Amino acid sequence: MHTDPDCLFCKIVSGRIPARKIHEDDELVAFHDINPAAPVHFLIVPREHIESLAEASEHHQALLGRMMLLAARLAPAQGANPGREGGFRIVINNGREGGQEVLHLHMHVMGGPRPWRRG
Amino acid sequence: MHTDPDCLFCKIVSGRIPARKIHEDDELVAFHDINPAAPVHFLIVPREHIESLAEASEHHQALLGRMMLLAARLAPAQGANPGREGGFRIVINNGREGGQEVLHLHMHVMGGPRPWRRG
Repeated sequence: MHTDPDCLFCKIVSGRIPARKIHEDDELVAFHDINPAAPVHFLIVPREHIESLAEASEHHQALLGRMMLLAARLAPAQGANPGREGGFRIVINNGREGGQEVLHLHMHVMGGPRPWRRG
Repeated sequence: MHTDPDCLFCKIVSGRIPARKIHEDDELVAFHDINPAAPVHFLIVPREHIESLAEASEHHQALLGRMMLLAARLAPAQGANPGREGGFRIVINNGREGGQEVLHLHMHVMGGPRPWRRG
């Protein structure tokens, strides 16, 4: 599995840099955003260093689907309100014009009562 | 496959309401957002009426992964700039606090030079 020793999120995945992790499995790691924009705000990243969705290929399909299902499972567990009146937002930024700041694929999951700082 | 005769996006999928479609296959349909927030802004929806990610289950994993791969393929074809300096953003709003307006799972794909109206 490809990793990048200079990548911030690879360092968090491997434990070389601390983060408030909320989930770890063989493929995915989730941790709180260090600068939350909403009452609930965490990130889901693959352990593999995939730069962005633009670099993902067919063999990542199942992994990408799992990220979405994991977001839906973790959001209420982290405090997002359930049901139609609650909910959560997922965002993936890819590339500079897409707003990406760390070049390791990551999904923002945000929830909780509005207003949020952004998004 | 479950559909909802009163759902706006089910009506677009079936052709009962017109939309500027850019992709159709057995599982997914993509069309331009009627109120674009960025130079490139389209939606990807499953043909199946899934209300939101909160209603998705394990058997949707492959479908959800395909939505992400399709976003990455269609974004540059629709005019998002390629590479690290270009890119695109994907957003899925789920439930009222998540910002969801139409209760049929849909992925926003946005790109092009900044600033954008929101997002």
